[in-house]
Amino acid sequence: MPKLWNETIEAHRRTVHDAILDATVELVRERGLLAVTMSQIAEKTGIGRATLYKYFPDVETILAAWHGRHVAAHLEQLARAGERGGDAGQRLEAVLETYALIHHQMARHGFGPDLVALLHRPDDVGHAQHRLSAMLRDALADAARAGAVRDDVAPDELAAFCLHALRAGAVLPSQAAVRRLVAVTLAGLRAR
Amino acid sequence: MPKLWNETIEAHRRTVHDAILDATVELVRERGLLAVTMSQIAEKTGIGRATLYKYFPDVETILAAWHGRHVAAHLEQLARAGERGGDAGQRLEAVLETYALIHHQMARHGFGPDLVALLHRPDDVGHAQHRLSAMLRDALADAARAGAVRDDVAPDELAAFCLHALRAGAVLPSQAAVRRLVAVTLAGLRAR
Repeated sequence: MPKLWNETIEAHRRTVHDAILDATVELVRERGLLAVTMSQIAEKTGIGRATLYKYFPDVETILAAWHGRHVAAHLEQLARAGERGGDAGQRLEAVLETYALIHHQMARHGFGPDLVALLHRPDDVGHAQHRLSAMLRDALADAARAGAVRDDVAPDELAAFCLHALRAGAVLPSQAAVRRLVAVTLAGLRAR
Repeated sequence: MPKLWNETIEAHRRTVHDAILDATVELVRERGLLAVTMSQIAEKTGIGRATLYKYFPDVETILAAWHGRHVAAHLEQLARAGERGGDAGQRLEAVLETYALIHHQMARHGFGPDLVALLHRPDDVGHAQHRLSAMLRDALADAARAGAVRDDVAPDELAAFCLHALRAGAVLPSQAAVRRLVAVTLAGLRAR
Protein backbone atom coordinates (compact mmCIF):
# COMPACT_ATOMS: atom_id res chain seq x y z
CA MET A 1 0.00 0.00 0.00
CA PRO A 2 1.24 3.56 -0.70
CA LYS A 3 2.68 5.40 2.27
CA LEU A 4 -0.06 8.01 2.23
CA TRP A 5 -2.72 5.33 2.60
CA ASN A 6 -0.97 3.84 5.62
CA GLU A 7 -0.78 7.28 7.18
CA THR A 8 -4.49 7.79 6.58
CA ILE A 9 -5.28 4.44 8.23
CA GLU A 10 -3.03 5.30 11.14
CA ALA A 11 -4.65 8.72 11.57
CA HIS A 12 -8.11 7.11 11.49
CA ARG A 13 -7.11 4.52 14.12
CA ARG A 14 -5.74 7.28 16.32
CA THR A 15 -8.96 9.29 15.97
CA VAL A 16 -11.13 6.29 16.93
CA HIS A 17 -8.75 5.41 19.78
CA ASP A 18 -8.95 8.92 21.23
CA ALA A 19 -12.74 9.09 20.74
CA ILE A 20 -13.09 5.84 22.76
CA LEU A 21 -10.99 7.27 25.61
CA ASP A 22 -13.01 10.50 25.70
CA ALA A 23 -16.38 8.71 25.57
CA THR A 24 -15.34 6.36 28.38
CA VAL A 25 -14.17 9.12 30.68
CA GLU A 26 -17.36 11.07 30.04
CA LEU A 27 -19.48 7.99 30.89
CA VAL A 28 -17.47 7.35 34.05
CA ARG A 29 -18.05 10.92 35.15
CA GLU A 30 -21.79 10.69 34.47
CA ARG A 31 -22.48 7.24 35.90
CA GLY A 32 -19.63 6.29 38.19
CA LEU A 33 -16.81 3.88 37.62
CA LEU A 34 -18.59 0.59 38.23
CA ALA A 35 -21.69 1.31 36.13
CA VAL A 36 -19.98 1.72 32.75
CA THR A 37 -20.11 -1.14 30.20
CA MET A 38 -18.39 -1.80 26.88
CA SER A 39 -21.79 -1.57 25.10
CA GLN A 40 -22.40 1.93 26.44
CA ILE A 41 -18.91 2.98 25.35
CA ALA A 42 -19.41 1.62 21.82
CA GLU A 43 -22.74 3.42 21.53
CA LYS A 44 -21.40 6.75 22.82
CA THR A 45 -18.33 6.56 20.55
CA GLY A 46 -20.62 5.77 17.59
CA ILE A 47 -18.91 2.48 16.65
CA GLY A 48 -19.95 -1.16 16.83
CA ARG A 49 -19.15 -3.37 19.80
CA ALA A 50 -16.99 -5.63 17.59
CA THR A 51 -14.92 -2.63 16.49
CA LEU A 52 -14.51 -1.48 20.10
CA TYR A 53 -13.14 -4.91 21.08
CA LYS A 54 -10.55 -4.62 18.28
CA TYR A 55 -9.18 -1.62 20.16
CA PHE A 56 -9.58 -2.57 23.84
CA PRO A 57 -10.44 -5.76 25.79
CA ASP A 58 -12.23 -4.05 28.73
CA VAL A 59 -13.16 -0.78 30.47
CA GLU A 60 -10.19 -0.85 32.82
CA THR A 61 -7.72 -1.01 29.92
CA ILE A 62 -9.43 1.98 28.29
CA LEU A 63 -9.15 3.99 31.50
CA ALA A 64 -5.50 2.97 31.89
CA ALA A 65 -4.82 4.21 28.31
CA TRP A 66 -6.65 7.46 29.08
CA HIS A 67 -4.60 7.85 32.25
CA GLY A 68 -1.35 7.15 30.36
CA ARG A 69 -2.22 9.88 27.84
CA HIS A 70 -2.88 12.34 30.69
CA VAL A 71 0.27 11.49 32.62
CA ALA A 72 2.38 11.92 29.48
CA ALA A 73 0.75 15.31 28.81
CA HIS A 74 1.33 16.42 32.41
CA LEU A 75 4.98 15.37 32.43
CA GLU A 76 5.43 17.31 29.18
CA GLN A 77 3.73 20.37 30.75
CA LEU A 78 6.02 20.14 33.81
CA ALA A 79 9.14 19.74 31.68
CA ARG A 80 8.18 22.86 29.69
CA ALA A 81 7.58 24.79 32.95
CA GLY A 82 11.10 23.85 34.06
CA GLU A 83 12.62 25.07 30.80
CA ARG A 84 11.19 28.58 30.95
CA GLY A 85 13.61 31.42 31.50
CA GLY A 86 14.74 32.76 34.87
CA ASP A 87 17.16 31.49 37.49
CA ALA A 88 17.06 28.07 39.18
CA GLY A 89 14.71 29.36 41.90
CA GLN A 90 12.23 30.79 39.38
CA ARG A 91 12.29 27.60 37.29
CA LEU A 92 11.60 25.53 40.42
CA GLU A 93 8.70 27.80 41.33
CA ALA A 94 7.22 27.40 37.82
CA VAL A 95 7.38 23.59 38.10
CA LEU A 96 5.79 23.57 41.58
CA GLU A 97 2.97 25.88 40.56
CA THR A 98 2.26 23.86 37.41
CA TYR A 99 2.11 20.63 39.44
CA ALA A 100 -0.27 22.08 42.04
CA LEU A 101 -2.53 23.56 39.33
CA ILE A 102 -2.67 20.20 37.49
CA HIS A 103 -4.05 18.58 40.67
CA HIS A 104 -6.44 21.48 41.22
CA GLN A 105 -7.80 21.20 37.65
CA MET A 106 -8.06 17.40 37.72
CA ALA A 107 -10.18 17.63 40.87
CA ARG A 108 -12.39 20.35 39.38
CA HIS A 109 -12.98 18.18 36.32
CA GLY A 110 -14.42 15.49 38.53
CA PHE A 111 -11.51 13.09 38.86
CA GLY A 112 -12.13 12.22 42.47
CA PRO A 113 -10.13 9.89 44.72
CA ASP A 114 -11.91 6.70 43.54
CA LEU A 115 -11.01 7.14 39.88
CA VAL A 116 -7.50 8.25 40.68
CA ALA A 117 -7.01 5.30 43.07
CA LEU A 118 -8.12 2.81 40.42
CA LEU A 119 -5.91 4.34 37.77
CA HIS A 120 -2.90 4.71 39.98
CA ARG A 121 -1.98 1.07 39.75
CA PRO A 122 1.51 0.35 41.06
CA ASP A 123 3.05 -0.12 37.56
CA ASP A 124 1.78 3.14 36.16
CA VAL A 125 2.58 5.09 39.29
CA GLY A 126 6.01 3.54 39.52
CA HIS A 127 7.01 4.78 36.08
CA ALA A 128 5.39 8.22 36.07
CA GLN A 129 6.24 8.98 39.71
CA HIS A 130 9.83 8.00 39.04
CA ARG A 131 10.15 10.48 36.15
CA LEU A 132 8.35 13.16 38.13
CA SER A 133 10.51 12.67 41.24
CA ALA A 134 13.69 12.73 39.14
CA MET A 135 12.62 15.95 37.38
CA LEU A 136 11.80 17.66 40.66
CA ARG A 137 14.92 16.38 42.45
CA ASP A 138 17.09 17.89 39.69
CA ALA A 139 15.25 21.23 39.87
CA LEU A 140 15.69 21.25 43.68
CA ALA A 141 19.39 20.36 43.48
CA ASP A 142 19.95 23.19 40.94
CA ALA A 143 18.08 25.63 43.19
CA ALA A 144 20.06 24.48 46.28
CA ARG A 145 23.37 25.04 44.44
CA ALA A 146 22.13 28.52 43.46
CA GLY A 147 21.28 29.21 47.13
CA ALA A 148 17.53 29.49 46.45
CA VAL A 149 16.66 26.33 48.46
CA ARG A 150 17.92 24.94 51.79
CA ASP A 151 20.80 22.46 51.52
CA ASP A 152 20.43 20.86 54.97
CA VAL A 153 17.85 18.37 53.66
CA ALA A 154 18.60 16.13 50.65
CA PRO A 155 16.89 16.99 47.32
CA ASP A 156 15.03 13.65 47.17
CA GLU A 157 13.48 14.24 50.61
CA LEU A 158 12.51 17.77 49.58
CA ALA A 159 11.02 16.33 46.37
CA ALA A 160 8.83 13.94 48.41
CA PHE A 161 7.72 16.89 50.57
CA CYS A 162 6.79 19.00 47.50
CA LEU A 163 5.00 16.24 45.60
CA HIS A 164 2.78 15.45 48.57
CA ALA A 165 2.20 19.02 49.75
CA LEU A 166 1.17 20.28 46.31
CA ARG A 167 -1.47 17.56 45.87
CA ALA A 168 -3.43 19.65 48.37
CA GLY A 169 -4.19 21.70 45.22
CA ALA A 170 -6.92 19.13 44.59
CA VAL A 171 -8.92 20.15 47.68
CA LEU A 172 -8.46 23.93 47.49
CA PRO A 173 -11.34 26.07 46.21
CA SER A 174 -9.54 28.52 43.87
CA GLN A 175 -6.39 29.18 41.85
CA ALA A 176 -5.54 31.96 44.33
CA ALA A 177 -5.59 29.37 47.16
CA VAL A 178 -3.35 27.11 45.05
CA ARG A 179 -0.84 29.97 44.65
CA ARG A 180 -0.83 30.48 48.44
CA LEU A 181 -0.18 26.72 48.80
CA VAL A 182 2.81 27.04 46.47
CA ALA A 183 4.08 30.05 48.47
CA VAL A 184 3.83 28.12 51.78
CA THR A 185 5.58 25.10 50.21
CA LEU A 186 8.36 27.31 48.83
CA ALA A 187 8.77 28.96 52.24
CA GLY A 188 9.41 25.50 53.70
CA LEU A 189 11.99 24.81 51.00
CA ARG A 190 13.79 28.11 51.50
CA ALA A 191 13.96 28.37 55.29
CA ARG A 192 16.98 27.09 57.21
CA MET B 1 -29.16 -13.12 82.87
CA PRO B 2 -26.89 -11.59 85.52
CA LYS B 3 -24.91 -8.54 84.48
CA LEU B 4 -21.59 -10.35 84.87
CA TRP B 5 -22.67 -13.01 82.41
CA ASN B 6 -23.62 -10.39 79.81
CA GLU B 7 -20.25 -8.74 80.28
CA THR B 8 -18.51 -12.07 79.75
CA ILE B 9 -20.47 -12.66 76.53
CA GLU B 10 -19.69 -9.16 75.35
CA ALA B 11 -15.98 -9.59 76.11
CA HIS B 12 -15.97 -12.90 74.25
CA ARG B 13 -17.67 -11.34 71.21
CA ARG B 14 -15.16 -8.51 71.24
CA THR B 15 -12.25 -10.98 71.40
CA VAL B 16 -13.57 -13.00 68.43
CA HIS B 17 -14.34 -9.78 66.51
CA ASP B 18 -10.79 -8.48 66.99
CA ALA B 19 -9.26 -11.88 66.18
CA ILE B 20 -11.17 -11.90 62.85
CA LEU B 21 -9.87 -8.42 61.97
CA ASP B 22 -6.28 -9.37 62.79
CA ALA B 23 -6.44 -12.69 60.88
CA THR B 24 -7.92 -10.94 57.82
CA VAL B 25 -5.27 -8.23 57.72
CA GLU B 26 -2.53 -10.82 58.08
CA LEU B 27 -3.97 -12.86 55.19
CA VAL B 28 -4.28 -9.74 53.01
CA ARG B 29 -0.64 -8.92 53.68
CA GLU B 30 0.49 -12.47 52.84
CA ARG B 31 -1.66 -13.11 49.76
CA GLY B 32 -2.87 -9.76 48.46
CA LEU B 33 -6.27 -8.21 48.69
CA LEU B 34 -8.12 -10.10 45.98
CA ALA B 35 -6.95 -13.60 46.95
CA VAL B 36 -8.44 -13.72 50.47
CA THR B 37 -11.67 -15.71 51.08
CA MET B 38 -14.05 -16.01 54.02
CA SER B 39 -13.06 -19.71 54.42
CA GLN B 40 -9.40 -18.81 54.84
CA ILE B 41 -10.31 -16.16 57.40
CA ALA B 42 -12.45 -18.61 59.41
CA GLU B 43 -9.65 -21.17 59.37
CA LYS B 44 -6.95 -18.68 60.42
CA THR B 45 -9.14 -17.24 63.20
CA GLY B 46 -9.87 -20.81 64.43
CA ILE B 47 -13.67 -20.52 64.17
CA GLY B 48 -16.26 -22.12 61.89
CA ARG B 49 -17.46 -20.46 58.69
CA ALA B 50 -21.01 -20.21 60.09
CA THR B 51 -19.70 -18.34 63.14
CA LEU B 52 -17.67 -15.98 60.94
CA TYR B 53 -20.81 -15.08 58.96
CA LYS B 54 -22.58 -14.19 62.23
CA TYR B 55 -19.97 -11.46 62.64
CA PHE B 56 -19.38 -10.22 59.06
CA PRO B 57 -21.05 -10.68 55.63
CA ASP B 58 -17.86 -10.37 53.51
CA VAL B 59 -14.13 -9.61 53.40
CA GLU B 60 -14.62 -5.98 52.49
CA THR B 61 -16.75 -5.34 55.56
CA ILE B 62 -14.08 -6.92 57.77
CA LEU B 63 -11.42 -4.68 56.27
CA ALA B 64 -13.64 -1.63 56.69
CA ALA B 65 -14.08 -2.54 60.39
CA TRP B 66 -10.33 -3.00 60.74
CA HIS B 67 -9.77 0.37 59.09
CA GLY B 68 -12.32 2.03 61.36
CA ARG B 69 -10.52 0.65 64.42
CA HIS B 70 -7.23 2.04 63.13
CA VAL B 71 -8.60 5.45 62.24
CA ALA B 72 -10.19 5.76 65.69
CA ALA B 73 -6.89 4.81 67.34
CA HIS B 74 -4.99 7.33 65.21
CA LEU B 75 -7.40 10.16 65.93
CA GLU B 76 -7.07 9.34 69.63
CA GLN B 77 -3.26 9.37 69.33
CA LEU B 78 -3.36 12.77 67.57
CA ALA B 79 -5.76 14.24 70.14
CA ARG B 80 -3.41 13.13 72.95
CA ALA B 81 -0.42 14.66 71.11
CA GLY B 82 -2.32 17.97 70.95
CA GLU B 83 -3.05 17.88 74.68
CA ARG B 84 0.53 17.50 75.84
CA GLY B 85 2.10 20.43 77.64
CA GLY B 86 3.91 23.34 76.04
CA ASP B 87 2.74 26.41 74.14
CA ALA B 88 0.48 26.41 71.06
CA GLY B 89 3.49 26.08 68.73
CA GLN B 90 4.85 23.06 70.59
CA ARG B 91 1.44 21.37 70.68
CA LEU B 92 1.06 21.90 66.92
CA GLU B 93 4.51 20.43 66.34
CA ALA B 94 3.60 17.34 68.41
CA VAL B 95 0.43 16.79 66.34
CA LEU B 96 2.28 17.18 63.03
CA GLU B 97 5.07 14.82 64.02
CA THR B 98 2.59 12.21 65.26
CA TYR B 99 0.62 12.39 61.99
CA ALA B 100 3.75 12.00 59.83
CA LEU B 101 5.00 9.07 61.95
CA ILE B 102 1.63 7.30 61.68
CA HIS B 103 1.94 7.38 57.88
CA HIS B 104 5.55 6.26 58.06
CA GLN B 105 4.69 3.31 60.28
CA MET B 106 1.61 2.28 58.26
CA ALA B 107 3.77 2.12 55.12
CA ARG B 108 6.48 0.11 56.91
CA HIS B 109 3.84 -2.39 58.06
CA GLY B 110 2.95 -3.09 54.46
CA PHE B 111 -0.19 -1.00 54.02
CA GLY B 112 0.54 0.06 50.48
CA PRO B 113 -1.52 2.31 48.23
CA ASP B 114 -3.85 -0.49 46.99
CA LEU B 115 -5.09 -1.45 50.44
CA VAL B 116 -5.36 2.15 51.55
CA ALA B 117 -7.23 3.08 48.33
CA LEU B 118 -9.76 0.29 48.86
CA LEU B 119 -10.30 1.17 52.49
CA HIS B 120 -10.49 4.89 51.94
CA ARG B 121 -14.02 4.78 50.64
CA PRO B 122 -15.56 8.23 50.42
CA ASP B 123 -17.82 7.73 53.49
CA ASP B 124 -15.01 6.66 55.79
CA VAL B 125 -12.66 9.31 54.51
CA GLY B 126 -15.32 11.97 54.75
CA HIS B 127 -15.86 11.39 58.44
CA ALA B 128 -12.30 10.76 59.61
CA GLN B 129 -10.79 13.45 57.38
CA HIS B 130 -13.34 15.92 58.65
CA ARG B 131 -12.41 15.28 62.31
CA LEU B 132 -8.71 15.35 61.45
CA SER B 133 -8.96 18.59 59.47
CA ALA B 134 -10.98 20.23 62.25
CA MET B 135 -8.44 19.16 64.89
CA LEU B 136 -5.54 20.50 62.86
CA ARG B 137 -7.31 23.71 61.87
CA ASP B 138 -7.91 24.49 65.56
CA ALA B 139 -4.28 23.76 66.45
CA LEU B 140 -3.13 26.03 63.60
CA ALA B 141 -5.52 28.84 64.57
CA ASP B 142 -4.24 28.66 68.20
CA ALA B 143 -0.65 28.74 66.98
CA ALA B 144 -1.38 31.68 64.64
CA ARG B 145 -2.95 33.66 67.54
CA ALA B 146 0.17 32.89 69.60
CA GLY B 147 2.37 34.18 66.74
CA ALA B 148 3.95 30.74 66.14
CA VAL B 149 2.36 30.33 62.68
CA ARG B 150 1.82 32.76 59.78
CA ASP B 151 -1.57 34.50 59.72
CA ASP B 152 -1.54 35.57 56.06
CA VAL B 153 -3.02 32.20 54.98
CA ALA B 154 -6.26 30.84 56.50
CA PRO B 155 -5.95 27.93 58.99
CA ASP B 156 -8.03 25.58 56.80
CA GLU B 157 -5.69 26.12 53.83
CA LEU B 158 -2.69 25.56 56.07
CA ALA B 159 -4.36 22.39 57.40
CA ALA B 160 -4.75 21.04 53.82
CA PHE B 161 -1.05 21.83 53.21
CA CYS B 162 0.06 19.99 56.38
CA LEU B 163 -2.15 16.92 55.90
CA HIS B 164 -0.87 16.39 52.37
CA ALA B 165 2.78 17.26 53.02
CA LEU B 166 3.09 14.95 56.03
CA ARG B 167 1.79 11.94 54.11
CA ALA B 168 5.22 11.98 52.50
CA GLY B 169 6.17 10.22 55.76
CA ALA B 170 4.94 7.05 54.03
CA VAL B 171 7.71 7.15 51.40
CA LEU B 172 10.62 8.26 53.60
CA PRO B 173 13.19 5.67 54.70
CA SER B 174 13.69 6.55 58.40
CA GLN B 175 12.22 8.33 61.42
CA ALA B 176 15.05 10.87 61.13
CA ALA B 177 13.87 11.68 57.59
CA VAL B 178 10.29 12.01 58.89
CA ARG B 179 11.51 14.54 61.49
CA ARG B 180 13.23 16.56 58.74
CA LEU B 181 9.93 16.47 56.81
CA VAL B 182 8.14 17.89 59.86
CA ALA B 183 10.80 20.60 60.19
CA VAL B 184 10.43 21.63 56.52
CA THR B 185 6.61 21.65 56.86
CA LEU B 186 6.82 23.80 60.02
CA ALA B 187 9.21 26.19 58.28
CA GLY B 188 6.54 26.69 55.60
CA LEU B 189 3.94 27.36 58.30
CA ARG B 190 6.11 29.86 60.16
CA ALA B 191 7.56 31.94 57.33
CA ARG B 192 5.88 35.16 56.20
